[in-house]
Amino acid sequence: MANHLKIFHLNGFQMRHGGEINQGILAYETWGQLNEDQSNAILILTGLSADSHAASHSERDTAGWWEYMIGPGKAIDTDKWFVFCASSLGSCKGSTGPCSPNPYTKQAYKFTFPDLTLEDIANSAFSAIQSLGISQLACVIGPSMGGMSSLALILQHPQCTRHMINIASGCHSEPLSTAIRSLQREAILLDENFNNGNYSSDEWPTKGMKQARKLGMLSYRSGLEWKDRFPRKLRQRPHKPFGIEFPVESYLEYHAENFIHKFDPVSYIYLSRAMDWFDAFDYAKTDRCNPFKNVELQSALVMGAKTDLLFPTHQQKEIAELLSKTGCNSTLKITDSIQGHDAFLVDEENYSAEIAEYLNQLEI
Amino acid sequence: MANHLKIFHLNGFQMRHGGEINQGILAYETWGQLNEDQSNAILILTGLSADSHAASHSERDTAGWWEYMIGPGKAIDTDKWFVFCASSLGSCKGSTGPCSPNPYTKQAYKFTFPDLTLEDIANSAFSAIQSLGISQLACVIGPSMGGMSSLALILQHPQCTRHMINIASGCHSEPLSTAIRSLQREAILLDENFNNGNYSSDEWPTKGMKQARKLGMLSYRSGLEWKDRFPRKLRQRPHKPFGIEFPVESYLEYHAENFIHKFDPVSYIYLSRAMDWFDAFDYAKTDRCNPFKNVELQSALVMGAKTDLLFPTHQQKEIAELLSKTGCNSTLKITDSIQGHDAFLVDEENYSAEIAEYLNQLEI
Repeated sequence: MANHLKIFHLNGFQMRHGGEINQGILAYETWGQLNEDQSNAILILTGLSADSHAASHSERDTAGWWEYMIGPGKAIDTDKWFVFCASSLGSCKGSTGPCSPNPYTKQAYKFTFPDLTLEDIANSAFSAIQSLGISQLACVIGPSMGGMSSLALILQHPQCTRHMINIASGCHSEPLSTAIRSLQREAILLDENFNNGNYSSDEWPTKGMKQARKLGMLSYRSGLEWKDRFPRKLRQRPHKPFGIEFPVESYLEYHAENFIHKFDPVSYIYLSRAMDWFDAFDYAKTDRCNPFKNVELQSALVMGAKTDLLFPTHQQKEIAELLSKTGCNSTLKITDSIQGHDAFLVDEENYSAEIAEYLNQLEI
Repeated sequence: MANHLKIFHLNGFQMRHGGEINQGILAYETWGQLNEDQSNAILILTGLSADSHAASHSERDTAGWWEYMIGPGKAIDTDKWFVFCASSLGSCKGSTGPCSPNPYTKQAYKFTFPDLTLEDIANSAFSAIQSLGISQLACVIGPSMGGMSSLALILQHPQCTRHMINIASGCHSEPLSTAIRSLQREAILLDENFNNGNYSSDEWPTKGMKQARKLGMLSYRSGLEWKDRFPRKLRQRPHKPFGIEFPVESYLEYHAENFIHKFDPVSYIYLSRAMDWFDAFDYAKTDRCNPFKNVELQSALVMGAKTDLLFPTHQQKEIAELLSKTGCNSTLKITDSIQGHDAFLVDEENYSAEIAEYLNQLEI
């Protein structure tokens, strides 16, 4: 993977809420070949915890987070498309973020990192795209947070792409979704080791990060899936009172342990808040205006799963309908997937088929 | 309210997992008059955080947690029924629980309190009922945890009641529900002030209790309700980074603040674990057996709300179907209430009407 990582330099990059990034970088990867008239470019904007490694580049490479979707002959066919995916600005996966050193002080930014919005994530990725000589994308694809970042992109750059695939997202976060993320941020902020962002690898806000991750996991999946996945049977009674004894508890514990050192706590809360701040209706002149009024999309595929707790399907319906009214050929596909918000990552059959069908009929 | 509180003494009360309660009490309240042949008794088994004060006893009295439901001329008509409601054993609302003094050591039980199960809660309440000369209930009514306690009651005492109203409950907790409760318990246990149960009112596990309550609130309600309830508009940017700025965050904060000193943390985790331990299928001889096989209910009303996240409606359907197969005249009512798990507390119109209709047709 390492030798496939590319760097785009951010200098004088203006952040939406003020402040700018200098001597910053965006780490990205690409798959497939850009054609001569630069008309086959697909930008993937990622979910909160994903990175640029959406798929492997060769058989010896490690699998990416959307491995089943991207590659030669797959739904996002890299024999046809030039695919670009960056680690989000503000993340901790190679691109500049709160745990990167501030070039002027040489100290990690932490809370001196400028406010981060999904607009900044979208703009920085699009700047990198433009640096490759691409003035218009064939398609932007965004699941989850990436779906909202895609909206942020087209709202700011109405002609930036001809098509869009928007998955498990909404025009904004609804209060239940915000409440869950608020609790995740609070768990991290309240951890005594968090220490206003001045934690070290020896004194890591482990408890807060674990709680945040567990809460994430239960909101990313669905009760329907877990019902059949975990046996009722209790494990042996734990040695200490109120230790782990239910199968679902060990599952959460295992995955939380796995996650906590893979993500920087300050980055996490910056990205999480960016999701709650985003509102497509900020771009509508009045409450009754269609925020996508000026967007020049030819077509869009909007997808969601019936069991998604974080972004219920009426939110995908809203996106599809608003886009339709602008003359965009917009298709809504709600799947019966039982895997909840994460369905796009695991329900390979449904998501592969829909995305392949949509992309295959696009002209380059 | 105080002068309406009655006491039932628990001595040599055997707990299901071992241990016994001596010199213990069950605090309860009653409404209406017990008739001569003791045939008009209704037992209400409560949710986790409720107490014996289900309704006021006079106009000057404070309102109870099910005020709209219980009283003269109301759905649970106290002109017709003798209604009994106790604070759960193990709770901290007047009945003996982990924060009560152990009569032998004079110290609060804390973690020396015996394991608590819903069977113990049901049995202690039924013992109090029997002490009043009632050998068989007309009806047991239980919402949420009380619904599972009602199942625990009829499974242990197959002839204890002729009728049942079971609301927002299930034969057991499903993994998502257990995961949420597990996170609530963990938040409390991990609070540095929890100190293995040796907290004081000055050093209270405030953070853990607040997180547990907030998590509770978001699982008791529904996204559908909150969507229309909270404006999108942000409050003023908070003074400190990542302070409260979304309307739903202030709502959660307000309610959490309100709750934390009203409930004992050790009691909370004991009751919470009891909900996860309960399994009606423990009473089935084999996996294919109907656990309610020996239960002699004449009729049952099983209710649930479409938006309930903790006890999805297929769980109420399961109860109703299993009871039907035993010859019980069982009716399933799934409401369209948008208020989620808590619908029985707030959707007065739907729940009042269904429960009134059901109880009115019962013969005393």
